Amino acid sequence: MATITVLGAGMMGSALCVPLVDRGHRVRLVGTHLDDDIIRSLRAKGIHPKLGLELPRAIEPFPFDEIERAMQGVELMGVGVSSPGVRWAGEQLARFVRPEVPIVMITKGLELDAGGLRPLPDVLRSCLSTKLETPLHPAAIAGPCIASELALRVPTCVVLAGRDSAAAERVAAELRTGYYHVWTSADVVGVEVCAALKNAYAMGIAFALGLHEKRGGTPGSVAMHNHESAVFAQSVVEMQRVVARAGGNPATAAALAGVGDLDVTCNGGRTGRFGRLLGLGLSPGAAIDRMQGATLECLDILRVMRAAVTLFEQRGVLSSEELPLLRHLWEVALDGAPVAVPFELFFAD
Amino acid sequence: MATITVLGAGMMGSALCVPLVDRGHRVRLVGTHLDDDIIRSLRAKGIHPKLGLELPRAIEPFPFDEIERAMQGVELMGVGVSSPGVRWAGEQLARFVRPEVPIVMITKGLELDAGGLRPLPDVLRSCLSTKLETPLHPAAIAGPCIASELALRVPTCVVLAGRDSAAAERVAAELRTGYYHVWTSADVVGVEVCAALKNAYAMGIAFALGLHEKRGGTPGSVAMHNHESAVFAQSVVEMQRVVARAGGNPATAAALAGVGDLDVTCNGGRTGRFGRLLGLGLSPGAAIDRMQGATLECLDILRVMRAAVTLFEQRGVLSSEELPLLRHLWEVALDGAPVAVPFELFFAD
Repeated sequence: MATITVLGAGMMGSALCVPLVDRGHRVRLVGTHLDDDIIRSLRAKGIHPKLGLELPRAIEPFPFDEIERAMQGVELMGVGVSSPGVRWAGEQLARFVRPEVPIVMITKGLELDAGGLRPLPDVLRSCLSTKLETPLHPAAIAGPCIASELALRVPTCVVLAGRDSAAAERVAAELRTGYYHVWTSADVVGVEVCAALKNAYAMGIAFALGLHEKRGGTPGSVAMHNHESAVFAQSVVEMQRVVARAGGNPATAAALAGVGDLDVTCNGGRTGRFGRLLGLGLSPGAAIDRMQGATLECLDILRVMRAAVTLFEQRGVLSSEELPLLRHLWEVALDGAPVAVPFELFFAD
Repeated sequence: MATITVLGAGMMGSALCVPLVDRGHRVRLVGTHLDDDIIRSLRAKGIHPKLGLELPRAIEPFPFDEIERAMQGVELMGVGVSSPGVRWAGEQLARFVRPEVPIVMITKGLELDAGGLRPLPDVLRSCLSTKLETPLHPAAIAGPCIASELALRVPTCVVLAGRDSAAAERVAAELRTGYYHVWTSADVVGVEVCAALKNAYAMGIAFALGLHEKRGGTPGSVAMHNHESAVFAQSVVEMQRVVARAGGNPATAAALAGVGDLDVTCNGGRTGRFGRLLGLGLSPGAAIDRMQGATLECLDILRVMRAAVTLFEQRGVLSSEELPLLRHLWEVALDGAPVAVPFELFFAD
C-alpha cells in the first residue's frame, strides 16, 4: 500500500483513482483551480459531476490550495491535467518531486520543437529536471480507456510507457487490479504518437456517419461501413508510418496503444460527433459551434502534425504522399475543404 | 470492356456485379442450384431478394442449367460460391477454364492439410490444375466490404491477392471504378488468413455487447467499449502472429485485409450478433438456434484453427501461449466454456 496523489480531477484523473483505491492504496485527488466544483461535489456528495458517478469515498478530494497537505508522504504522483496544462503541472510538481517518487501521466499529447515531435512525458520531465540531480522519467498511461467505464470497473487494458523499464514495471505492479490490466512499454515515442494521432484519425473515420446521414441514410448494419473501415485501415497504416518517422516502433501502432485506442475513440465520444458534423458538410467553424465548447484534441494534433509533416518533408525523412489521409483531415478540419476521402492515394507501399 | 461471368449469386457475388457493369463490362451472373429463387427474382423484377435491392438490369442472370451459354466468350471468371462450395465450383469451372482467362474469387476461407493452412485460391487451383498445362493462379478479393453497401455504390476499398502479381494487376485494372478501389497483393496466405480469422475475432469482440446487456446496461458511449477495444487490439496482434506462422506477411494483418476487414465485420452483421449471444451467457447450441440458420463462418474457422494450432504446436512452430484469445474463443464457441476473456495473458511480447 502506497500513498498516491493525483493532480487533476477531470474525468480520467478521477477515474484512475478507482483502481488505485481498489488496489488498497491511500489515494488523494487534487483538483486544479479549474476543478473546484468537482472537488466540492466529491466532498459533499461523493459524486463526480462530469463522470456522473458516485466515486468510492476512500478517494480523498483536495482543492488546489490544499496541495501541500495532499503531497505529504506521497510515494507516487499522478498527472491528470489537460494537455495544455502539462507545463503548469510540471511547475507545481517541481515543489514536491523526489528521485524515489515515480510520476505517472495520463495527460497525452505531442509537441513539435526543432528536434521533432516531443511526447508530453519528455516535456514534463524538462519542467522537473532542474530540481533533481537524477531527473525522473515520467511514465505515461495510454490505450483504450473510456474514463467512465474504468470508474465503473469495466475490464480495461492499458500500457504504461516509460523510458526506465524497471521503474515502469514497478509502477505497473502498483496499478494492476482484477479489472485494470497494465502492460509496460519502453516505446514512449510510439505510444504517445498513437495516443495523440488517434484523435485525428477517429475524426476521419466518423466522416462516414455524416456522409451517410447526408444521403438520407439511417444508422444500421448497412450504412457506409465500407467507407468507415477503409479509413480505419489507412489510419493504422499511417500511424505506423508516423511512429517510425518519429523514432518509435511501428508495431506499437498495430497493438493496444494504437489500434486499440483508435477503436475505442470511434465509439461515440466527442471526436466522433465532431467528425460526423464535418461529414454532414458543416464548416469547421459551424461544427465547432455545435460542439458547445467540448475539448477537441483532434484539432490540436492536426495543427501539430501539419507543422511536423512540413518539417519532416524539409528534412527529407517523409514524403507527403505517405500520409494522404492525414493531409485530407487537416485540409477538412483546419482549412474548410469539403470531405472527399482520397482513397485512390491510400495503401501505397 | 470484357465479358465476365460470375458463378454464385449470393450477396457478395451479386454485389460484385455492380461495379463490373458500371465499369462497362458485359456481366453474367450464374446462380448455383441453391440460387434458383434469386435468379428467378432477378429475371422477373431485377430485385435480389437477399440483398433486398434492385440491381442494374445490365447484369444478365442465368440459372445454373444455362451455365454453358453464360460462359460463351468469357474473358474473366468470378467465383462467388460459399466456402464449402469451392471444390464444386472448381469442378464446374474446369469445363470452361482457359489459360488466358483469369479467375477472381470472393469466396474466402482456409483449409488445413498436412502442409499447414491452405488458402482457398490454392484449393480451387488444385481442382483446375489437371485441365491446364500452365495452371492458373486464381486471385482473391478481400478487405472491408459489406455486400449491400457495395451494391449501393458506397466507397469501398479491397485488395486483390494473387501469386502472379502481373496478372493480378491486370485484373485489378478491370475491376476499378470511382467507388470501388482495388489494390493488389502477392501475400495470398496473409490476405486469406486474415479474411478467415476476422470472423472468429469479430465474434469475440462482440462478447462485450452481451456482457454489458447481461449487467443491465444499455447501448451507448459508456458501455463495455474498453473490453471490446482491448479484445480488438489483441485480435490484431494474434492475426499478425498467425499470418507469420502460416508463411504470410504480418503487415497484411495491420492493413486493409486485416484490421480493415475486422472493423467492418464488427459493424452489426451476423457474426457480431452471435458473439453477443455468447456474451449474454447462452450456450453455443442455444446461440446457434437463435441465429435461425444463418451461416456462421466463425465456427468453421475456429474448428480449422483449433486443429491447426495443435499441428503447429506439435511441430514446434507456435506455442499455445501466443494465441490466448483464439484459444478462449474456441473454448467458448465450440466447447461451451463461459465467457471470461483472459486479458492477463494478452499482449505478451
